[in-house]
Parts: sequence; structure tokens; C-alpha cells
Amino acid sequence: MIGDFTIDATDGLARAATLETAHGTIRTPVFMPVGTKGTIKALDPLELEALGAQIVLGNTYHLHLRPGEDVVRDLGGLHRFMAWGGPILTDSGGFQVFSLRDTLIAADDDGVTFRSVYDGTPERLTPETAMGVQAALGSDIAMALDECPPGEAERAVVERAVERTARWAARSVASPAAPGQMRFGIVQGGVDMPLRRRSVDQITSLPFEGFAIGGLSVGEEREAMFETTGQVAALLPAARPRYFMGIGDPEGVLRVIASGVDMFDCVLPTRTARTGSALTWDGRLNMHNKRFERDAGPLDPDCDCPACTRFSRGYIRHLIMQRELLGLRLLSLHNVRFLVSLCGAARSAIEDGTFSAFLDRSLARLRPTR
Amino acid sequence: MIGDFTIDATDGLARAATLETAHGTIRTPVFMPVGTKGTIKALDPLELEALGAQIVLGNTYHLHLRPGEDVVRDLGGLHRFMAWGGPILTDSGGFQVFSLRDTLIAADDDGVTFRSVYDGTPERLTPETAMGVQAALGSDIAMALDECPPGEAERAVVERAVERTARWAARSVASPAAPGQMRFGIVQGGVDMPLRRRSVDQITSLPFEGFAIGGLSVGEEREAMFETTGQVAALLPAARPRYFMGIGDPEGVLRVIASGVDMFDCVLPTRTARTGSALTWDGRLNMHNKRFERDAGPLDPDCDCPACTRFSRGYIRHLIMQRELLGLRLLSLHNVRFLVSLCGAARSAIEDGTFSAFLDRSLARLRPTR
Repeated sequence: MIGDFTIDATDGLARAATLETAHGTIRTPVFMPVGTKGTIKALDPLELEALGAQIVLGNTYHLHLRPGEDVVRDLGGLHRFMAWGGPILTDSGGFQVFSLRDTLIAADDDGVTFRSVYDGTPERLTPETAMGVQAALGSDIAMALDECPPGEAERAVVERAVERTARWAARSVASPAAPGQMRFGIVQGGVDMPLRRRSVDQITSLPFEGFAIGGLSVGEEREAMFETTGQVAALLPAARPRYFMGIGDPEGVLRVIASGVDMFDCVLPTRTARTGSALTWDGRLNMHNKRFERDAGPLDPDCDCPACTRFSRGYIRHLIMQRELLGLRLLSLHNVRFLVSLCGAARSAIEDGTFSAFLDRSLARLRPTR
Repeated sequence: MIGDFTIDATDGLARAATLETAHGTIRTPVFMPVGTKGTIKALDPLELEALGAQIVLGNTYHLHLRPGEDVVRDLGGLHRFMAWGGPILTDSGGFQVFSLRDTLIAADDDGVTFRSVYDGTPERLTPETAMGVQAALGSDIAMALDECPPGEAERAVVERAVERTARWAARSVASPAAPGQMRFGIVQGGVDMPLRRRSVDQITSLPFEGFAIGGLSVGEEREAMFETTGQVAALLPAARPRYFMGIGDPEGVLRVIASGVDMFDCVLPTRTARTGSALTWDGRLNMHNKRFERDAGPLDPDCDCPACTRFSRGYIRHLIMQRELLGLRLLSLHNVRFLVSLCGAARSAIEDGTFSAFLDRSLARLRPTR
């Protein structure tokens, strides 16, 4: 039933699990492509399904402002609106409000006031409005409103964010949800482990169906990010899903899986595609490069995506050089498939009890892409 | 065998025919989507196939300059390059050279000198180089080089273009072709029927496999265009395909079919899509319009394309307002399907002997879109 979370296998700290949602079963570890404005940029939902994507993200901030959750609801809810029949996770909108700093007017204990990035209209976001928008959108997993400070924030700022996040989490979980909608809480605390422990205690005391590690991948040192992730994941309840917010480079994905994270999202594969680059086992390929001009081979010889099975590097380079939309599509398809395949291979290795060797082999093979 | 052209049915002047090419059979009347730079903008060749597109255009001017026909040949020819297994028609490059007037350096009886629109490099186009590029691309139908004056050109200019086109046609047809490649000649003469008759005599005396009506849809009066088309089509050999260069609005397509034209191309459906508009039986819909905000219906209730069967006008409006690539894709899919369906309906009506009634009913139903 909805919310059931089964650990199918573990290997070290890594887990292979199953999460039941109102729109289907998710097998973890799972990469979740980001559909900021109700579309995974350049891709059709049928393509995402064919790529093996199991769940997509929608963005509460953007969908609230354009076209508005009432429009989405009138058009049948977010699943019908974007013609995606699988599970959807929506964020709370908090990340955009706090990270689009030029538009932030004031944050207080009740909520946040900001100007719309679209037209400057003042807007108010509270735990209740964040959950209300997500209920109207009808996502399968709604995220509690949190305060996410930047990686360089001082301890006092991080501590205030932890406390505010805890109060907002309690109000979020007390707000009405859509039928069948799960709620996940978010742990804050930067790279400060005492604050992280406090936040874990606060958030896990609330009746959330899953727990997210927020406040990382926001400018802190990368090794500190992995170190903190490992320690926080170990503190989270083993029986519930763990979601790392915002990682999508292949090395990073493998390392958070190794820490016991089940779910993660990032715009990286689709954004990287739109800059003309492909994620491959040989590192990130900049398809503008002249060396690909007459290259008849696929983007990645190990990939089974529509771009790799049907088009040459030379053709894709031509499309990218000419800013043709098909080029962005093919790179987006490939990059999403690359991460989906990577997660599938990680799951198989966990099930086989060979994850440690898979991790070492994969990290050695992957050239750095960040 | 390649080049076989069979008239399957006629109704009035309208024809339903079959043309055999090295990459398959084309049933006419046929709309040919334009893949200027080796891609029909925003669409995947598998999508085009599913839409029922039978043949696509490639553009000699653009492919010669970027990536260069030698690159395309090294990557397996234009079919393999763009992963389109069906027939391809390439133009001669002449239309771009003469219409991008800022870049034209000089035209003489031997050929044309111009500056590349990409980087200003001086380039030379002659009948022999135009056919050579098309042979390297490996298209199924190559067009002879012609001189296409603008619609407002004086008679002396049009007459010179007719004479030059005739000489160039003779040189084009004498140039080597790729294996299995047909060559079509182009009739010029503007809206001047004595010049048109002279051009028809000159061009049809050469051993081309098909004949195109060029030099229309270039700024002349629209009724004069249809009048000239009807008269010129009647002068062309009934036993060979007739191709009207550059028409893609639904009304125009129906009217040239009624004149006995078999093939036509235009960027209109895909360009219109990229401006955010849909071709429908109710006229052209500007999807930016607020009235579509909560419209749960399809772009066109009679259409069976992926946009109309899976997405609402409200969602497509949202995508267009947010400049999301999926919006351009969905409108491109729809607009191409609309014209492909229109041609299919015209063919059925010709086969049934009901074309005249179909034409009247369709023209009355179609609101003007030009």
C-alpha cells in the first residue's frame, strides 16, 4: 500500500529498496529528473518512461507562480497536466525563495515574503501555503517547507535555520495533504554535525513518510558534503526512504548511494545537455569540440539510449553547433539515461552483494565531471 | 523501379500518384517537411515517420556550409547522418543565394558568388557544384540550379532568370548524380505567362525526372500565384511529378493540389510552431492567448497527433508562455501532422472522385491562416 517501504537488499551502507506510491512502485536507488515548470526540459514524458525514469520532480515555486496551482488543478492535477502517469515529488518552494536572494524580502518565524521572479509581485510562502500548493498539484510526495542557508553561512544562521525548519516541519505535517500524498521532512544543519544531530532528532520525531538531507550541495566543500551525508544518513531511520536533495554528477551519485541514500534529484543531466555536453564513462564530452566533427561513433559506446543507438557524435556535434533543438533533446535523453542506468547498475550490484567492487571500479573508470 | 511515376487517380486537375525512389514509395499529393540543416526543427525522424511524413527536404546551401558535404558523406550520407530512412529531396542552394540578398556578390551566366551567411567567406555556386554537393549528400531527388528573382522583379530581370535557368538546367542534368538519384528541373518566369511558357518548353526538353514550379510564393499577389500555378501545371508533362516550391498554409496547399500539383514543401508548419501557433480547422491558434489558460481540450479536436491525443491546450499554452522546448515540439508535431492529414484526405477524395466537394467544404471550413 501507499507509503510501504521495503528494503530488498543491503550491501555495506548501500540499500536497494522499494517504495509504493499512489502512481506506482519506485525501486531505489533512484535518480529523479527535475521538471521545474511541469516539464523535464526538452523531453516528452513517454521518452522519460522509455528511459526508465521512475519518478520526476515538479517545482512548487515555479508552478505556483506560472501557471498557478489552481490552473493545474482545473486541468486535472499535475500528473494529467504534464501527461506523466508515474510518481511525482514536489519540492516546497523554499529552496528557490532562499536561493533567489535578490527577490527575498523578509523571512520570519511564520514564513517568507519574496518577490515573484516572473513579475516582481510580492508573494508569501508559509508551511501551510507550501503544503496547500502541493496538495492542489496532487503530487505523490510533498516536501515540508524548510529554510536552506548557503554553504558559507555562519553557525548562528545555520542554527536559526535548523530551529525554523523544525517548527515549519511540524506545521507542514499538520497541514492537509492530497489523497494518497506522502510527506517528507528535511534535515538541515550545514556541515555542523551537532546541529545536524539536533535537526535529525527534531524532524524524525514527526510523522513523515521519508526524510531528506537538505542544505548540502549549496557551496560547501565537496568532501565535507560527502562526509556529512554519510554521518547524517546513518542517523536517519533505516526503515524510511532517505533523499539527498540536489546531486546528479555520476561520481556524486555513486558516493551518496554508498552512504545509504535512496533517492536524489538534480537538474545537472538536463542542464548539462543544454550546454552541449554529454555525461559518459569517459567524462563529460563538450560536443562543440572539433574532434567530434567526423566521429561516427555514439556518445557513449556502453549506452542504449535513443541518441547512442541511432545518431553519431558527428551529427550531434553538428546539431549543437547549429543550436538545433534536436541536439538538446538527444543530449538530454542520453544524460538522463546515463544516470538511470548508473542507478540500475548500482541496484544490481547491491542485490548481488558486489556493490563495493562496483563502486571502486566505477569511480576509477569515471573521469571527474564536476 | 526508381523514378517510376504512376497516376493512381485523377479528379478534375487534381492527381493521386505514386513515385518510386531509392528510399521508398511516395504517395501524392505530398507535403514535404523542411529539414534545413539536416533536421526538421525540434523533431526526431522517428516522430516524422509516425506522423506519416513520407519525404523530407534537406538544404544544400546550409549543409554545404555547415557541416560541409564532405563531413556528411564521411558520416554515411545525409540519410544516415540524420537517421531518416525515407526519401530526401535536396534543393540546389540557389534560392538562399538569391534571397539572402545582403550576401550576394555577383551572379553571371556561369554561376553565383556570395558570402557565407555563417562567416562571410566568399563562396561560388555553379550548376556543377550544386549537383556535386547534392550527389555527395546522396539525396533521392536533386534540384537543378535556378535563378529565382523576387516577386516584384521587372520583366527583363525575370526574362534573364528564365534564360539563365535554362542554361543552368542543361548543365545540371549533364552533371554526375549519386546512384539512384533523380533530378528535377525548375520552371521560372514569375507571373508572366509568355515567359512561363518559354521556360516550360526549355526545361521540359531536358531529361529530368520531375518538374518544379519555382519563382512563386516570393512576394507576388496571392491570386496571381494560384492563377499562374494552374496555367503552368497544365503545361507540364502529365506523366511526371509536379512540385510547387514553397507553400504550406492549408488553403494554399489545397488550391495547388486542385491545380494538379503533386508535391510541395514549406517551413510554415514548423516555423509557425516555433512562434507558438497551431494550424487547425478553426484557423491559426496563437497559444499565447489567455483564453487557452484553462482549456482542457486538444489543439484540434479532429487531430490524432501526439499533442492532441495527450496534452491540453492549457498545458501547451503554459509551455509556450514559459518558452519550454516541449511546447515547440508539440506544436511542430501537430502542425506537420495537420498538413500530412490534409494531404491524405485530399488523396482519398481524389481516389473517391469527390475532390471538388472536399475542396469546397475544406476551404469553407478553414478560416484564413495567412
